[in-house]
Formats: sequence, C-alpha cells, structure tokens
Amino acid sequence: MTTSPLSRLHNHGQCFWLDSLSRRMLDDGSLERRIRDQGLSGVTSNPAIFAKAMLGASPEDRAAYDPRIRVAQETTSPGDAEIDVRAIYERLAVDDVRDACDLLLPRWEQAMTDGAGVDGCVSLEVSPHLAHDTNATVLEARRLWHAVGRPNLIIKVPGTPQGIPAIEQLLVEGINVNITLLFGQAAYEETVQAYIRALEQRLREGRDLHTIGSVASFFLSRIDTAVDARLRRRSHPEVDPQLRGEAQALLGQSAVAAARLAYVRLRELLASERWQHLAEHGAQPQRLLWASTGTKDPSLPDTHYIEPLIGPYTVSTMPEATADAFDDHGRVAATLSATAPEATAITQQLERVLGVSMESIADQLVGEGVQKFNAPYEQLLDGLEQRARSLAAVDEAGPLPGVAAKLRAQVLRMTTAAGSGHATSSLSAADLVTGLLFHEMRWDPSRPWAGDDPARDQDRLLLSKGHAAPILWAGLHEAGAIGEDPQNLRRLHSDLEGHPTPVNPWVPVATGSLGQGLAAVNGMALADRLDGIEARHFCILGDGECSEGSVWEAAQFAADQGLERVVAIVDMNALEQSGPAPYGHDSSVLAGRFRAFGWKTLEIDGHDFADILAALAATREGGPTAIIARTVKGKGVSFLEGADGWHGKALDQDELVTALAEIDAPDLRRPVEPRRVPARLEPAAPQSGGPPAREALKLDWAKGEEVATRAAFGDALVQLGGRLSDLVTLDGDVKNSTKTDGFAKAFPTRFFEAQIAEQNMLGAALGLAVSGKRPCVATFAAFLTRAHDVIRMAAHSHAPHMLISGSHAGVSIGEDGASQMGLEDIAMFRALNATTVLYPSDAVSAARLTEAGLAHQGIVYLRTTRGKTPVLYDADEDFPIGGSKTLMASDADELTLVAAGITVHTALAAAKRLREQGVAARVIDAYSVKPLDVPTLKQAAETTAAILVVEDHNRDGGLADAVAAQVGRLTRVFGLGVTGEPHSGTPQELLERHRLSEREIEKEALAIAA
Amino acid sequence: MTTSPLSRLHNHGQCFWLDSLSRRMLDDGSLERRIRDQGLSGVTSNPAIFAKAMLGASPEDRAAYDPRIRVAQETTSPGDAEIDVRAIYERLAVDDVRDACDLLLPRWEQAMTDGAGVDGCVSLEVSPHLAHDTNATVLEARRLWHAVGRPNLIIKVPGTPQGIPAIEQLLVEGINVNITLLFGQAAYEETVQAYIRALEQRLREGRDLHTIGSVASFFLSRIDTAVDARLRRRSHPEVDPQLRGEAQALLGQSAVAAARLAYVRLRELLASERWQHLAEHGAQPQRLLWASTGTKDPSLPDTHYIEPLIGPYTVSTMPEATADAFDDHGRVAATLSATAPEATAITQQLERVLGVSMESIADQLVGEGVQKFNAPYEQLLDGLEQRARSLAAVDEAGPLPGVAAKLRAQVLRMTTAAGSGHATSSLSAADLVTGLLFHEMRWDPSRPWAGDDPARDQDRLLLSKGHAAPILWAGLHEAGAIGEDPQNLRRLHSDLEGHPTPVNPWVPVATGSLGQGLAAVNGMALADRLDGIEARHFCILGDGECSEGSVWEAAQFAADQGLERVVAIVDMNALEQSGPAPYGHDSSVLAGRFRAFGWKTLEIDGHDFADILAALAATREGGPTAIIARTVKGKGVSFLEGADGWHGKALDQDELVTALAEIDAPDLRRPVEPRRVPARLEPAAPQSGGPPAREALKLDWAKGEEVATRAAFGDALVQLGGRLSDLVTLDGDVKNSTKTDGFAKAFPTRFFEAQIAEQNMLGAALGLAVSGKRPCVATFAAFLTRAHDVIRMAAHSHAPHMLISGSHAGVSIGEDGASQMGLEDIAMFRALNATTVLYPSDAVSAARLTEAGLAHQGIVYLRTTRGKTPVLYDADEDFPIGGSKTLMASDADELTLVAAGITVHTALAAAKRLREQGVAARVIDAYSVKPLDVPTLKQAAETTAAILVVEDHNRDGGLADAVAAQVGRLTRVFGLGVTGEPHSGTPQELLERHRLSEREIEKEALAIAA
Repeated sequence: MTTSPLSRLHNHGQCFWLDSLSRRMLDDGSLERRIRDQGLSGVTSNPAIFAKAMLGASPEDRAAYDPRIRVAQETTSPGDAEIDVRAIYERLAVDDVRDACDLLLPRWEQAMTDGAGVDGCVSLEVSPHLAHDTNATVLEARRLWHAVGRPNLIIKVPGTPQGIPAIEQLLVEGINVNITLLFGQAAYEETVQAYIRALEQRLREGRDLHTIGSVASFFLSRIDTAVDARLRRRSHPEVDPQLRGEAQALLGQSAVAAARLAYVRLRELLASERWQHLAEHGAQPQRLLWASTGTKDPSLPDTHYIEPLIGPYTVSTMPEATADAFDDHGRVAATLSATAPEATAITQQLERVLGVSMESIADQLVGEGVQKFNAPYEQLLDGLEQRARSLAAVDEAGPLPGVAAKLRAQVLRMTTAAGSGHATSSLSAADLVTGLLFHEMRWDPSRPWAGDDPARDQDRLLLSKGHAAPILWAGLHEAGAIGEDPQNLRRLHSDLEGHPTPVNPWVPVATGSLGQGLAAVNGMALADRLDGIEARHFCILGDGECSEGSVWEAAQFAADQGLERVVAIVDMNALEQSGPAPYGHDSSVLAGRFRAFGWKTLEIDGHDFADILAALAATREGGPTAIIARTVKGKGVSFLEGADGWHGKALDQDELVTALAEIDAPDLRRPVEPRRVPARLEPAAPQSGGPPAREALKLDWAKGEEVATRAAFGDALVQLGGRLSDLVTLDGDVKNSTKTDGFAKAFPTRFFEAQIAEQNMLGAALGLAVSGKRPCVATFAAFLTRAHDVIRMAAHSHAPHMLISGSHAGVSIGEDGASQMGLEDIAMFRALNATTVLYPSDAVSAARLTEAGLAHQGIVYLRTTRGKTPVLYDADEDFPIGGSKTLMASDADELTLVAAGITVHTALAAAKRLREQGVAARVIDAYSVKPLDVPTLKQAAETTAAILVVEDHNRDGGLADAVAAQVGRLTRVFGLGVTGEPHSGTPQELLERHRLSEREIEKEALAIAA
Repeated sequence: MTTSPLSRLHNHGQCFWLDSLSRRMLDDGSLERRIRDQGLSGVTSNPAIFAKAMLGASPEDRAAYDPRIRVAQETTSPGDAEIDVRAIYERLAVDDVRDACDLLLPRWEQAMTDGAGVDGCVSLEVSPHLAHDTNATVLEARRLWHAVGRPNLIIKVPGTPQGIPAIEQLLVEGINVNITLLFGQAAYEETVQAYIRALEQRLREGRDLHTIGSVASFFLSRIDTAVDARLRRRSHPEVDPQLRGEAQALLGQSAVAAARLAYVRLRELLASERWQHLAEHGAQPQRLLWASTGTKDPSLPDTHYIEPLIGPYTVSTMPEATADAFDDHGRVAATLSATAPEATAITQQLERVLGVSMESIADQLVGEGVQKFNAPYEQLLDGLEQRARSLAAVDEAGPLPGVAAKLRAQVLRMTTAAGSGHATSSLSAADLVTGLLFHEMRWDPSRPWAGDDPARDQDRLLLSKGHAAPILWAGLHEAGAIGEDPQNLRRLHSDLEGHPTPVNPWVPVATGSLGQGLAAVNGMALADRLDGIEARHFCILGDGECSEGSVWEAAQFAADQGLERVVAIVDMNALEQSGPAPYGHDSSVLAGRFRAFGWKTLEIDGHDFADILAALAATREGGPTAIIARTVKGKGVSFLEGADGWHGKALDQDELVTALAEIDAPDLRRPVEPRRVPARLEPAAPQSGGPPAREALKLDWAKGEEVATRAAFGDALVQLGGRLSDLVTLDGDVKNSTKTDGFAKAFPTRFFEAQIAEQNMLGAALGLAVSGKRPCVATFAAFLTRAHDVIRMAAHSHAPHMLISGSHAGVSIGEDGASQMGLEDIAMFRALNATTVLYPSDAVSAARLTEAGLAHQGIVYLRTTRGKTPVLYDADEDFPIGGSKTLMASDADELTLVAAGITVHTALAAAKRLREQGVAARVIDAYSVKPLDVPTLKQAAETTAAILVVEDHNRDGGLADAVAAQVGRLTRVFGLGVTGEPHSGTPQELLERHRLSEREIEKEALAIAA
C-alpha cells in the first residue's frame, strides 16, 4: 500500500479527491476503502455525477436510491400528488454529501492544524440556473450549508462575474467555497482577491480565520478541448505551413500551461505580505484544484492532467477511471514550481498562432460551462421525478412482487406436475405478466377475451412466445379468470395446453409457432378501430423470436396503419432453446429495429416494477409501442437464472422443493378490479351472423360469355360488401390481379393494403376473424405458400370465418413462368384440419362460391384462374359446398371425367371429341374439392368403368388424390395433373405440355377405355 | 408587378439582395426573373450556399455543375490523378459569381450615380480558414478579385480583429468589401472606422472614391438565437418570478434592437462633417446589410427580420423562402429611423436580465461564426472532390449511359415481342444493371455463374426482384454472355423465361417470389467463405419487396455472420404492382432499417452514374452493404415514367415506336473485360461428387434398443461430416431437439446457427447447394411450413443437394400440443416437383436414410420422430430410396398394413394381435414415401384383399393418398391418419385418440376384413 502512487501524492503536499460520489460507494464501503488505502481525502459532486449515480450507471447504483426516494417523497411532499423533485434531489444529495463528510471529517480536522489549505472536504453545487444571480446564489448556498450541517462541506459556486460577490459574501459568513469553472488567469485573480477580501473582513470583524476554507478549481481538459479544436483548424492545408507546424506542436499543451501560470500566481500570493498577515491569524491558503482531469483526447496519456501538476497547496480531483489509471502506472514527482517560463512562452505562442487571447477563450468557456451544467441537472430532475412517480405507482399498486412470486411458484409446481413445459421462459416473463394483469390492464376476469362472443371492451394480452403458457395460466388463475386447477397443465382433458390454444376461452388465437402473435394483434386492433373500441393489445414476444421475419412484417404494418394501441413487449431473456440469443441483453439492438420500423420504443429492466409500470403506463399515450425488457431466464431461482439447458424442461421433485424455498411466495391475494375501455360497438347488422341473403348477388352473365373467375370473384365481393357490414378485405399488393381492387374502391375503410407481406396479411386476417369480422384475403395462389405456417396456426385457432382467395392457379397462367403458378395450393389446404377448398370453373360458380364461402364457418380456400373462361351456368344456379355439377351424362357412360376450374372446359371439350369417337364420358365439375360430393362420385364410380381426374395442380396431393381416397375402393381412379418443371409459354402450350389439354385428356381417356 | 412588396423596397432606399446562388438559377433564368420582376439588385454567396447548390439541394441543382466540374478538373489539374478540389471549387464559384455580376452590372452602374451606397453587387467569401490571418486574407481577396474581374464583385471578409486591417487594405486598393459576422456595436464601429480611413487614404492618394463600395453585414437571427437561449434559461422555475417575466417578454427582440442601434450610428456618421467631406469627393455610404434574415424560431413571423428594418442606406438579403414569404404577405413601410430610444432600452434591459453585456455575446458569436463557416466549407470541398472523382470514374468507364439506353431499348422490344413482361420495373433498374455488368463487377461473360460447374471466382448478380428479368437478359445479351435472341423472351423453348430460372446458365436460383434472393445470396457467400473465394454478390431488390419479412431475416443473418461481400441494391422506384410503394422515394426509411440490422448503407440517385459507380466502388471495402437507389419506374420513356398501371404490361407496336424514339439508343458496343476474383478453391474431395462410401457409417445399435430416429439422424450426420467435406448443416435454434448439435460441435465452421428464421435458413441452404455444398437443414417438421414458399422455389431452382430434416412429426410428440406437431409436412413435400420423402421408423433406417438422402440428387425430406422407438433392423441393412421393408408376410395374408415411422411399430403390434385372432396381415414399412416402392405395394395389392395405410400425419395428402394413387386401381386402399384437432396429452393418449394405436388399427383391420 505504501507504494500506491495515489497515496504518495500527499508527500508532495497534494490532496487526492475523487470526482465521483454515489450512495452505492457509501453503502458498499468502496469510498471508505479508497480513504484507507489510497489516501483519498476529499470528494466533489455535481449534477452530472449525481445523474450518473441516481439514474443508474448500473442497476445497483440506482437501486441504492430507491428507498431514499420513497422516504424523501414522503417527507418533502407528504400525501401530495405533486412531486417536489428538487426537494427530493436535495434530500438525496445532502444525505450522500453529509455521509461522505462524516467519513472525511478526521482529515478535515487534521488539515486545519496543518495550515496548508483545507482538505477532507466534500463539495456540493448550487443550482446551475442561479449562476448569473448573485443574491439567489447566496441564499441557496446558505440553505445547503445548513442542510448538510458539516464543517467540511464546501459549496461550489462558479467564478462568473455574478458569482464573485456571492463567493466573497459566503466566505465572510464562514461558508467554505469551491470556486468552479476557472479557465484563465483573470478570473482566477478575481477569486483570489475575493478570498483575501473575505478573510480580511472576517479579521476586521474579529472572526476566526482557520476554520474557513476555499479551493479554486481549474477545469483542465475543457481548456485543451477548446484550444486544440482551434489549433486543428490551423492545421488546414490552406494555412501557412510554418503556422501549421506550430499549431500541430502546441496540441494538448494549453491546459497544463494555464494551470502552471495560475500556480505561479498562487505561490507569489502566498509569499506576499498581505497574505502573510492573514496567515499569521490562521488563514488557510486557497488551494488550487485541478478539475476535469479525465483525458478527452485519446492521443494523450490517461495521466496527462495528473503527473505534470503535482505540488503543495493543490488538490487533484480524479474520476474513478483516472484515479485507477494513475494508481496503476502514474509517476509521482514534484512537477509544479513557483516559476513557469515555459508556460508563459507556450501561452504567448498560442495567442500568436490562434490570433486570439487565451483569456477570451477562457471567457467563452465560462459561458459554455454554465450552460453545460444545465442539461445534466435537468436530466437528473426529470429522471428523479420519473423514478419517484414510478416508485409511488409501485407502492400504490400494492404487493406486485408478492404476486409475481406466487405466479413463479405456481409455474414451477405445474410444470413439475406435468413433467414438462417451459418453466424458465415463464419465470423471465413473470414480472411483466404481473404488471400487466394485476395493474396496468383494464380487464375483467369474469369476461373472457376469446370464444364466440369475446368481451372486446377490455385490454387484452396475447403470448406470442406461446411456450411461456404456464405463466399465462398461472396469472389468469391467480386473477380468478380461470377456475381449472393449474396442476392439470398439458393433460388431455384440460384447457391448459402446452402452448395456448383457443380451447381456453382467454386465448383468441393459438400461438406456439413463433413470430405470429403480433400479426394477429394487428388484426384485432384493426377490428377495434372499425368498431370504435379503445382497447390496448399487449403482445409478449421472446427476443429470439424477433429473428422471425414475420415480426417485422407485423411491425411495419402496425406502424404504417397507425395502430396506436398495439404494444409489443419483448421478454429479452437472452437465452434461446439451444443457446444464447443473438444480442444478449443489448436491448438497444431490438429497440433500434422497432424504431426503424416506426415504433415508439422503451428499454427497461423487466424485473423492476418501477420500470415495468412506468413503461406500461407510457403505452396509454399511443404507439405502436415496443417495450424491450431485459430479463433473466429462470429469474427467481438461483440454479435456473441464466442457465442453459433448461428450456422446455421441468424440475424434478427435489429441485422443486429447493426452488420453492428460494421463491418463498407470500400468502396474499390481490383482486383485479374489473374495468372496461371505451367502446362504441355497433349492434351487429342482422345478416352478419348467418349466411348472406340469397338476394345479395345479382349476376347477369350470359352463358358462353368469357369471364375470368378472378374477375367474377371480385365482382361478387363488391356486391357482398354492400350487404355484409362485417366483411373486410386484405390484399398483398396484387389487388389489380386478384380483383379485390373493386372492393378497395367501394369500401376503403374495410380494405387493408397489406403490402407484399403475406404472413402478416394472413395473421391480421385471423385477428380480424376472431374479432367478429369476416375477412377475405387475396393473393396469388403460389404466394399463399408463404403464409403456410400462419394458415396452419389459423386452423389450430378455429378461425370462425376466413375466405382465402388464391388467384393465378396452375400452369394455365402461361408466360410468367413457374414461380407465379399455384401448383401446390390444393394440397396445402387439403392437408389442414377443418378447411374447405372451392374451385370454380366459370363466373357464375365463382360468384356463388364466393358468397357461399363467406357464409361458411372456418377457413375456406377459393381457387381462381387467371385466364377468361366461358360461362357454363345459369345465373341462378346454386352451388352448395359439398356439391358438384354433372355437365354431361348418359346411361351409356363408360368413363367419368372429374375436373375443376380450367380443366372443366378442357374435359368438356375432350368429352365431346370422345363422343364423336363413340366413347361416352360423363363430365363432373367437382367445384367443391373439400368436402367432395361423395354421393355423386360414388354413383359415377359404380356406373362407369373408371374415373379420370384432370387438374391444373401438381399431380400429388390434389383433386385426384382426394377422389381416389373417397371412391378409389369402388372403381379405378386415374389422374392427370402437372408433373415435371413448368416453363414460360402460352397457356395453351403449357396445358398441352402438361397433358391437361382436350387432346391429351382424350388420348388418356381412350387409353383407359381400351 | 408594381404591387410586389419586394419591388417596393427600393422606394424606401433599401436594396433587396438574394442570399442564394446556384448554377441552375443562372441557367434557367430564375435569377434574371427575380431581377426583372422583384427588383432584385444583388446576390450574396458563401460556402454553405454553394454546398447546397453544388452538392444537390435537388438533382437539377447538382446536375448543372457536372459539366463544369469536368472542365474545371481538366483545366486545373490536366492529366493529374490528384484532384485539386479547391481549384475546382474556386472555378465553379467564380464562374457563378461572374455570371451573376454580369446580370447585375447595369444596377451597379446606376447605383454609382445615385450616391446612396453601392448596389448591384455579388459577394464572394474568402476561405474561412483565413479568418484570423490578415495577410492571407488580403492575398486571397486580391486573387478572387482578379479571378472574377468584375467591378461589382464584393469580397466578404469577417469583421474579426485580424479582418479589420485586411478590410482597410483591400478598400484602399479599390476592392469592394462586404464585412460579415457583425453582431454588436463595437465591431460595427471598427468597420465604419476602417472604411472611412480607407476612403481618406484614397482621397489623400488622389484615387477615385465613387467606384469603391462596402457593406456592413449584421447577422440577425443568430443574435436572437443566442440571446433567446439565455433568456429561456432565465425562465426556469428556480429563477425569481419577476426576472422570469421580463426574460419571457424580451424573447425575439434583441436582433432587431441591435440592428436599429447600428442604423442610428450609421445616420450619425452620414451626418458628420468627416463623412460629408468624403461624400463631397464622391464617396458612397457604407450600407448596412441585414443578413441571416431567415427566421429560426417558429414562433416568430417569417418576415420578422424584414419588416421592422426598412430604410435608406440598407440592404435586406433574403434566402429564397423568406423572399417569397415577404413577397406574398410582407408589409412595406419605412420602419427605420435615425433615433431608436426603444432599442437602447431593450438592450439595457437585456443586459440587466442576463447579467451579461450584449457586446460579450456579440464577441462570442463572432468566434462561433468563423467556426460555423468551416464545416460547410469542408463538406463542400469533400463533396466536390467525391463528385469530381465520381465523374472522372464515369468518364473513364466509358459510354455507360449509352449502354443503358441500349438495354432499355432492348427491354422494350423484347417485352413487346412477348406481349407481356415487366418493362417498367426493368427500366428503373437499367442504370444499376449497366453499372454492375459493364463497370464494377469482376466477371467473365464466357464463364456462366450457375449450372453444374459454376464459375464462382467472379462477382455475381442475382435479381431478387425476378420480374425485372428482361433487364437481366438484355444486360447479359449485350455483354455477350448469352447468345439467344432476346426476342424469344417468355417463349416455351427459350432460356429467357418470364422470371429468371436456372434453365438459364447465368441464374443460380429461381426468383420471382419476392424477398428470397438475399437469403440465397447469404448461402452463396457462406460457401465462398468456406472456399476462400473473395467474390461479391450483388442482389437487386424492389422497394415493395422489402415489406417481406424474409428480407429482414436475411439482413440479420448477413450482418450477424459478417458476410462482408453481400450487397443489397434496392431499386426504389416507389411504385408497386397495384399502387405506390409504402415509402415513396424516401430512401432514409429503408436505409435506416438496414442500418438497424447492422448493415453499411448508402443512399443514391439510381439514374446518376457518378452516384452509382461511387456506391458500387464503396462495396469493395466490406459490408454487408445496402445501396438504396432512388429510381423512376419506366425511366427513359416519358409516358411510362412514374406512371401507374404499367406493371407487367408490354407496349403495343405504336407505343414501342414512340418509346424507342425517345430512348434513341446509340450504336455502340462496350466489351466486358473478363476478370476473376481471388479464390483458393480447394480441389473437391473425391467423395463429394458421388454417393458417400458405404463404409462411412458404422452403426452398432442392437435390435430392440430404444433410440429416437432424430438421435440416429444426428449420429449419422456427425459420422458423415467426417467423410463429406462438402456437408454443411443449418439449424433454426432447435439443434438440441433435431439433434444437429453433435455436428455443430464436431464441425463448427460447417455448422450455421440460422436462428429462429426458417425462410432465411432454407434460402441460405439453397445458396450453399448451388455453390457445390451439400446442405442439411433441420428444424421441427411443423416449422418447415414457414419456409414452404422458399422450398417451392428451391424445387424450381433444381437444388442439386438438399437434405431437409423435420423432427417432432405427428401427434406422437405429445404434451407440447398441436402447434408443435408436424401434420402437413408429407403433403407439403409430396406436392412439390422432383422431391424425395423419407420416413424412417428406427435408428438404423434413420441413419441409412440420412446417408442415402445426402447422396441423392435434389430435395430430400427426412421425417423423424421425437420419441424413442425400438431398433427393428440389422445394422447393415440397406435402405435404397424407392424401397420398402416387408416386416411380416405370409401367403395367407388377407390384409396389408402399410406404415411408416412411428406407426410401423403400432402396425406391427396390431398385426400380432390380429394374428392371434386368426387374421393374417402383411406389414410393410414404407420408409420411402416418395418415390414409393410400387412393385412391392402392387404385389401386396394383388395378393391381399385390402391395404390399410396408417400414418401419424393428417389424413389428407400423406402416405395413404400416395399409396391409393399408385395401387388404388388394384385393390381397396383404406387410410388411418390424423383427423380432428389434436390436443396436449401423452403420446399414447394421442395415438389412441387419433386412431393410430395398435388397438385402433386392429379394430379398423377387423372391420375391413369383415
């Protein structure tokens, strides 16, 4: 310890003061350690230092103030809704300063006997707003002096023209003063004179001199920063080369030179008769204090403002980093002297090169310095006010941490009982869910969010990270919203599935395939807008989940649509299933992304209720808002916290006992007060519930007229839009191709341009569907594969209504080529549970099936064709789901051709050619692909020798497979479908090439018949 | 015109000068118009004004300088690689100023006779770096004076202490001076005195007085800005309320007060005897000039610095917006007078309230003012240098605009010939494609990028916006890379499809489903890294395309993997298929998003070759880099530019003729010089081409041992990784579930954690596959639906190798619930062209099928099971693709049970139970679902009465459909598959519930047999 460079400064008459103070330093003994081990003998504070401490350089720094903020608020404004934040700040600062004073008092007392200047001081600053007001400064300083009540307090007052008389007055009164913001010799001289005048007055008045002290603070790095910036401008190529060289050589020299000149003046003064007279009466020298000693210019050594300025009657104040650097490798030697010819030379050279006096730069720096104190002071007050409010909110909110502990315990018990489940992902979200359900959300545990008649006039919560289901169940159970025993988690006959599903009445849509919740929430918020409901939708996502592109599709949509009440909360627990999440706990990455997508963002500690409640309250002001909450996976149980390998794993019984002991959940019950949000829900139009009235559609196509089925679908949609007030339409930038553009024009508020983002489009449609809307979604059939997983989850969500129109089906689209052809869409929709697949062949059937599809429950897929086809049916023909049309039939039929869509026309033509050759073929339009018209097909199977299915779809998984599965046991089923890789070409060329043309059907039929 | 407020200022003795100058204003006559219509009589310039003009306030502003920059560079540094940017700047500025002088000369000459002060001047500033250097300022001013060579030039010199002697010297020499940066009375007095001294000296020397002029410029808004900031700080609640009130009331008053005081001084001076003497000899008054008159504070009216300061001997300079505002609603009245007691009072009050003299604020403003000129000056020089270099690069690059015109003409001809195609989307990208193919890219038109042996040691271009295929074909054709006649576009037997496909040897992967190119490029770049190839991958995207989440998955992956040579170029043409793109031409939105995802970004004019080449050159420095290029859809043809309704539409013959005439493509041919990039491509390991050696796999599982097929897959992958140097693996954060974690540990450089982003994962795998790697991709079977469209496009891309492993298939996963169950995956893969589907039932078959799958061409899907199953086969059993295993058989078999995966075990158990009941059933393990083992199934169909297919997959689209399609015509095929909505539960409970358990199979079999 004796070799510590810091502790050796005293040997040269210099005091080492720390330019930092925080409650944590006082509480954890680190300040005391520095006093003991490093010879620390003073502390300086200012609003920037307190801002760092009180607003949280680290969570520990901030947490140390929380109880004190509570007390301060209670005592400064008891029972008052208004927060007197200046009083709180003062209370905290005064306490810190006083405690530090007590630690340093022995040194102060010793210094009084040394007579080499005061030491053992702690400084405290008057409000920077008073810098130019002499009287106010004096009043404020007196107040602080009495509030701290310690003799070794030293009040900071800036050495401005208005500050000097205040300083003198305070010193006369016996209040120690640290004169700050000194940059030049003229201002220093003013402070020196003020000090001497004050001492002389005290002497005249017969007052004590040795208990009164002052230091004069030079702010070093700021001088270099200002001067070097000017010097660098002189290094410009346009400037005379000699001048340039000189400017270069002077970099980093001005501050030390100014300090040395001041020191020369100090030594002169101490040698003066005037001072000697005062000293004889016990006056303490006014020490020169080196402030702002942290090096700003990285090209300068980190001890640049320490090593060259060591000598008696000085104080070196250092920020922690500088102190540690100096203690590590600083050289201690007496480097100050009573003369400094070199400093004079440097100053003269500087003035010549810059063409401006150092004193004028100093003047400018004083002005800037006063201003620079304002910002951190304001920031500090704002931050403290916010924190005080948050803490008050937490206190008012009641025992939320206790509730969270209960939920955590419940989560662990239920997953252990189930033997599996995502306990740690639930624990990280426990505080967030508690803050939502038990404080911020306006909801009513007796009125479920989902189901046939969801209570939509409430805030709602959706777990996009569905694997955290246990915390949702635990929260809903604790709130009394669900009665089932949580221990039934994951059991076959329980509502409480492993991932949330709408089997539970509080779950609007199934989640568990990540990245889909936000899109559903978008749809729910759109429905709210249509119905005038002011509910918020809170959606909890995982951080790993944010790698899913669907999240960003949803983020774009929410912002572009202005969905102000959508809130995304990212539970950033930094661990994924199989390893660390991409960005650890760096919440700025995801916040930056949400901001880039147009969201309001907040970054919080997701286990700090003051943070949580403040952030949740901020969502009332409109967004969309993303809250990135830094959390710990497994939070609350030491062996689970941040530990890898626990994803989806339950504790065994022993582990559970240990964990529950750690959590120590209190025995409390916190009721949720039922609250609704404003809503002007129109009574549903009478026809909305049931099928649309038959009169809704007026069709006037003539048989034989050439009309594309996509166009007929579009026409029908416009007509139905007028009758069905709950009908809404979404399209992915192909409305002029899918033909939803008519609806868009006719019903602009019920049409949503979802842009080229199919996952969000389908997810939003699902959200609309579960909010009582009747969505129709359209894009190319091929691009629906983009949303396969979303549609899969929509099926698991039992979407009440959802008409999905896929246009441009099959090779018959022609020249655009394979990427634009829907060839797998029937297979995709067929393989989903409880879906309907419709495939019209002409305008009339397209319009009627649009009508029927919108009236039908569940997911209905309507496949349309790009090219025009002749109208086959009378306008008033009926097309029930599960039906078919037999277009040609006779008792002599040898063969049945089953077709749908475009192939109905080629099959009809083929049948006519076959008939010419004496082969009678039945032709069935199987417009209802799922469910099939089994009776009609059965009859055909029984009365004809074979069935040939022809479809403009991949051979596998389509209509032929469906027909074979149903009637393959009754007859021989053959299939003609697309095989091989399609290519650009004319529709006719491609039908030919893929064996769907009338000629190819004829050929195949003849082969079968033979 | 007579009522124009601007033109009426002259009636009050005030001149209106414009605070703006640009080449465009000179060229398009707008400056002349202002002189004629608004009485404009002078112009001021400074580096900030020239920066705005020369660096492009608008594309037109900037373009006007391009030819002049070329000439300036040629004349200032002919043949020199170094660019003397100061000389270029001076040349441009001098030309602008001289031309403006010429326009204003008549006014100047008239003013000389008026004797009310100079007018008709154009000002030009000396370098701000010389502000503190008297001699240098004089030299520079003389040089500029002679360079412009016009009597009405007026040189701007700041009124600093060093400036004053320079000003005096210049005036003595007869050079007009505009003294700038005046803020206070003291500095004004200096300039006044300098002017008088100079005139007196000229008089003494017998020189002319009336041709010499000067103005003294007060910078008004800056005074208010500085003073008001101080006043606002006095409005703080801590400040005395009365002071606060005063401070509030003084806002926005200081500048006008300072100007009025200066005007009083001017009038005094003009009345003095000393001046009268000079005036008698023809001296012109030094006008006061009001500068910085644009209002900065939005609470002040926009004419705040104009209306109150109208009077003789003054100049009001206005930026264009202020001039237009004043001309619109300004009030013209004589508002200046020779006394200003109110201004004096305001100034005194200000000094009292602020506690600081107005003169000290003025001093500070001078210092800041000099500094403020530096930044725009530097920015201007940097920008000009960059532009000069870019223009030089364009010139050196040769006739790129001509090439682009040729491509545009070609695009239009080929789409018209085809009758369809995306002409306008191609035209917007024409300049970008030209800059790439004909300048920046290192490539060789004789060595295709794709195909069986792609020449990977080249930069490559991929059109993610595949609909712009025509521009790609046109570019490749022009470069000689493809020989086929572009007029064959979209024809059946042509390589030139409607959207790019690998049928063309320059297309590595098919595009046309948007948002997928970047992921493929990621994979290609990963392959390059593995092989030490330093090639760049340029990927052109549409702006609308960036709504696809897959783009952001790819963006995240590229940045997190550090793929420095990936370049995304967004062709931001602001129009989508069906309407405007979301963000118009605001390139900052997409740039901000790419930056938030960790990319380097550049925003450019996508039709400016200087911009294009500079941005492309910047991609050499490492990225990933996103270039957001603002373009015009349909660029080059007036009736197509920015016009809606042309997407995917070709011109008719008449329109084509009109368009070609507009484009006027030159007859030139620009050869592409073949260039390779550095590469250390290892010679392919011998086993990479063919199937892995049979010895590769050492399996030692004993029959009956319980092993999950996913675990066996993982083990095999590790073994194969050692033998196949081209085997790479990607997983979507489920490697501990899919069991690719063993491979990840064993071969970390060949394992890529793709995070939870399946689209990018599959796309990157495709990119790896077409780069000679053998990718294995793994995630839950259910989540593969997320990438359905990407897999669809991979199939259209004829991926050479791609093993996709889907784990957690079927309801047998148990408690996690429906969202995690793969129930549609077989249907999805079956319906794709040229895919293989494998489904092992035990560890041995899983390992062997992994081996076989990796050796097989094309997309191979391997379906694995979560739970453990007993080993059925000997370790050396062979499992050829297209085969099956008959596990139980006899001549007496009444029924065949066909199963795969988990159901093989329940079917075997059921068969045993059936046998006990006297029903003989054959059991076939159909591990090769696609292609099926048709001979074995046929034999079963012919020898047993029925086939019952059992599968843990949705009933529709799976194995049962496949079997029925193949042998349904030979026997009755029944199927047991999952129907209804699954739920959480134990695996056994769910097999039972969905009728896949041994008991349910037995029941069904008995019913069929009956």
